[in-house]
Amino acid sequence: MKKYISPFKPKKYIKFKPKNFDVYTFNAGFKKNTDDLLVIVFKNLTNFASVYTNSSMPAAPIIWNKKYRNNKCKILIVNSGNANAFTGSDGIEEINKYVEFVSKKFECKKNQVLVASTGVIGEKLNSKYIISALNKNSQIKSKNILNAAKAIMTTDTYPKVAEKIIKIGKQKFKIFGIAKGSGMISPKMATMLSFIFIEIPLNKIQLNKILNDNIDETFNSITVDGDTSTNDMTTLFSTKNEENKKLKKEVLDFISIEIKDLMHNLSKQIVCDGEGISKLISVNVINAKSKNQAKKIAFSIAESNLVKTAIYGKDANWGRIIMAIGKANEKLDANKIELKFGKYIVAEKGRASKKISIKNLNEYMNRKIIEINLNLKSGKYNKTILSSDLTNDYIDINADYRS
Amino acid sequence: MKKYISPFKPKKYIKFKPKNFDVYTFNAGFKKNTDDLLVIVFKNLTNFASVYTNSSMPAAPIIWNKKYRNNKCKILIVNSGNANAFTGSDGIEEINKYVEFVSKKFECKKNQVLVASTGVIGEKLNSKYIISALNKNSQIKSKNILNAAKAIMTTDTYPKVAEKIIKIGKQKFKIFGIAKGSGMISPKMATMLSFIFIEIPLNKIQLNKILNDNIDETFNSITVDGDTSTNDMTTLFSTKNEENKKLKKEVLDFISIEIKDLMHNLSKQIVCDGEGISKLISVNVINAKSKNQAKKIAFSIAESNLVKTAIYGKDANWGRIIMAIGKANEKLDANKIELKFGKYIVAEKGRASKKISIKNLNEYMNRKIIEINLNLKSGKYNKTILSSDLTNDYIDINADYRS
Repeated sequence: MKKYISPFKPKKYIKFKPKNFDVYTFNAGFKKNTDDLLVIVFKNLTNFASVYTNSSMPAAPIIWNKKYRNNKCKILIVNSGNANAFTGSDGIEEINKYVEFVSKKFECKKNQVLVASTGVIGEKLNSKYIISALNKNSQIKSKNILNAAKAIMTTDTYPKVAEKIIKIGKQKFKIFGIAKGSGMISPKMATMLSFIFIEIPLNKIQLNKILNDNIDETFNSITVDGDTSTNDMTTLFSTKNEENKKLKKEVLDFISIEIKDLMHNLSKQIVCDGEGISKLISVNVINAKSKNQAKKIAFSIAESNLVKTAIYGKDANWGRIIMAIGKANEKLDANKIELKFGKYIVAEKGRASKKISIKNLNEYMNRKIIEINLNLKSGKYNKTILSSDLTNDYIDINADYRS
Repeated sequence: MKKYISPFKPKKYIKFKPKNFDVYTFNAGFKKNTDDLLVIVFKNLTNFASVYTNSSMPAAPIIWNKKYRNNKCKILIVNSGNANAFTGSDGIEEINKYVEFVSKKFECKKNQVLVASTGVIGEKLNSKYIISALNKNSQIKSKNILNAAKAIMTTDTYPKVAEKIIKIGKQKFKIFGIAKGSGMISPKMATMLSFIFIEIPLNKIQLNKILNDNIDETFNSITVDGDTSTNDMTTLFSTKNEENKKLKKEVLDFISIEIKDLMHNLSKQIVCDGEGISKLISVNVINAKSKNQAKKIAFSIAESNLVKTAIYGKDANWGRIIMAIGKANEKLDANKIELKFGKYIVAEKGRASKKISIKNLNEYMNRKIIEINLNLKSGKYNKTILSSDLTNDYIDINADYRS
């Protein structure tokens, strides 16, 4: 089988050594011949805020982290290749072992270590892999942020990094982050793994507000397969450990907007590397009666296998979009609906539009990015969901995942 | 592309001429070279009960039928190849035209005609197709029940017919029915099209009770792609037009059980011909805390693309089932869960079972029918959902549907 690569794979990547923490990556043996372990050691104790999966079967790292959510963080450890999910008390014990080792090595308390895992669910994670990887490499050299993004990949076909320089007054600050996909993506409270860093001193309350204000419009607005992971987690770190001066509300609001932009960038990168993707789908629902109506209908379209497969087939089969609107089971006036692919209208006034241009539509469906624009004309609420198409590569990747 | 055929295609079919109605089938031009129009003419005015899709975008035939749900039925007209959905007032007008023609031809009132359509959504249905098909065939000869099942197929790879002889006292009666799938299958109040006939005189109230008592456990317990059609409809006809004697409750209960069995047979045939199916999946959730919990978790597993693709890949990747349980977001005790493929245990006590036999599991995953048996051990409610796997054939069928 030819190895699948996303058509959205970037040509070049951001690559730098962060100022306020060291990046270490290793091959610990969870995967073959490739880094599968990331250890981030902050120079100082660091404020952070996290959101976690709302799965009722959360993985061991999620359970561990939730206990210490009020602490500061010195170390972040992330492994790929094993999710440490549905591993019972064993899963927690193994975390305890490797955290104990790491906290001694880097001189901090156990409850100052954050952990994350991604990979196969249900297999016991052996802490020895992590411990011996760190032992073997006693003279470790710190690496760059791209290495960090690479070490947390699973079925991702490219690493996901983003950065931004923001200016507050005359001072410049950097915000940046990494993320990984690329299956089991329909985050409900968070996403797959994403770690975001801001070089401005912010306290826990500020970080929590920024993260929670922006998570719904970014990581919670993407879907690849409608499946929600046991290990979803997004964490925002303030890496500048000074006592933060009182920031004005307008400055905080500005920072929040910039972070949102970065989160949007990373979440888009996840969809663009959605398993087997050939086309990115942007479902834009506007003028809904309520926020919830806009969201339900947008997700119903974005997660419909029949819609996603039609788009893979370059077929402007808009009837399936009508089906997906209908199955969301929201009270609607069919006669008000206006439906377009990009700027090309297909349906209005309760039926096929008389202005349909098959030629234009066929040309449009050949694009790499397909916009489904739905105007409900019954309110003021909008919602955009990014999705990927459903392809033979998706089937091949997932029918072969563990073999 | 090789034409896909379900591996569950039966070797032989039931075939007989019904006693109390005539079956006519035609090629009306909605599809090429194959019958796409079914007209059933009852010898007498017939009691019936229907359930319809709960889509908020119901097709024109659903809107038409709901108006006349209190009448008796003389004629049933079903076409395939065009769903007459999202066709606005045009859709209703076209139905009005062909119903007017048919009601004159077969001498009944317009409001004694039931209609159903299946096929592409959003294309105008031209009544002339139906009218000229009936005009051209003035000397029409009645056909058998298998012809009826064939005329309503869309992406189905085999026709779906079932019959049963039931005995009440010393008398024998026949119940039988037809159905069609095979995509857009996740019926919420009904199913794709199914028409069931019982040769016992029953009144509207009795028919409604039987249909509504059994729909949830049969047609509403199947899924192919999680997509709900705009045209779903199941109708139960009592074809014996005598004044019905007062039936004892126990006789009615007995009839209901037998009808349920027939409905189960037809709904299973639909899943077994689910688009691109290679394996039938039976998700059996037992001992849930509530009916709703059992149903939510069973559907979450049965509709997960990752679970369905793993089964296509013959991979006993039970971690994905844990993921699907978790995303149903029901309060559960992970330590109580017992999960098996068939009789082979994979998870218990909150982790992988120590009794897992890879050899047995690998053998099991080669079967055509895969049972996912989940015991929640926290209550007394059970739910079984039938589903199909997600395959490359599914993608090929749906990426090419309109071309």
